Amino acid sequence: MIKVSVMYPNKPGVQFDHDYYRDKHLPLIKSRMGAALKYYTIDKGLAGTAADAPATYVAMCHLLCDSVEAYHSSFGPYAQEISGDIRNFTKQTPIVQISEVVVENSATDQTKAPNRDPAPPEGREGQRQHA
Amino acid sequence: MIKVSVMYPNKPGVQFDHDYYRDKHLPLIKSRMGAALKYYTIDKGLAGTAADAPATYVAMCHLLCDSVEAYHSSFGPYAQEISGDIRNFTKQTPIVQISEVVVENSATDQTKAPNRDPAPPEGREGQRQHA
Repeated sequence: MIKVSVMYPNKPGVQFDHDYYRDKHLPLIKSRMGAALKYYTIDKGLAGTAADAPATYVAMCHLLCDSVEAYHSSFGPYAQEISGDIRNFTKQTPIVQISEVVVENSATDQTKAPNRDPAPPEGREGQRQHA
Repeated sequence: MIKVSVMYPNKPGVQFDHDYYRDKHLPLIKSRMGAALKYYTIDKGLAGTAADAPATYVAMCHLLCDSVEAYHSSFGPYAQEISGDIRNFTKQTPIVQISEVVVENSATDQTKAPNRDPAPPEGREGQRQHA
């Protein structure tokens, strides 16, 4: 399985219509890609590593397909139409990358996620910090 | 639900031990965060928008939690240990962002993914192109 990640860079004062993105743009992609699109996810950027740091991306979506070929053959014919819809929710240009899905969901993917449900560790102290 | 996206920038000749990342690092995070980590996903970068363009990120993981607070309280106490493990699989420093999960999975999230399973569109021509 592969994942196409579409990431819209954030910037101060960025305009992004998250409602349109959820209610119109992704359904458009789904209707055009048909069964080749197994499912998609949508994220809305909240913060960076520090609590008051901005998110790197104002929004992201991830499109899951069985293969790179399945993505190309289903998305390609509609790429111009789908790209043309971007202006309806933002002026940002997304970064796109294709990834191999190594672990799709650690809670359900038994074969690829070792050490599932280990005992919770001791010694939590409740302090807040980021890596 | 929130998603913590950890993204390792790609560069020519980048070193990244994907096996260690899958078999050691993410299980370490899971063991430390305990039940606060609902599940995680792992991606391995394959390509950018053009077939021969490099992926922006050599690897990514996404950590799913019920809330930002659940993430902070479970990850925070182990942030130093977890960050210290990064040197075991790469010299890259990840970009981290926290996002609100708008649609977790369009195939199963009925309430947030309108227009589920519309009829596939007509007129595919099979050409290959990217947005």
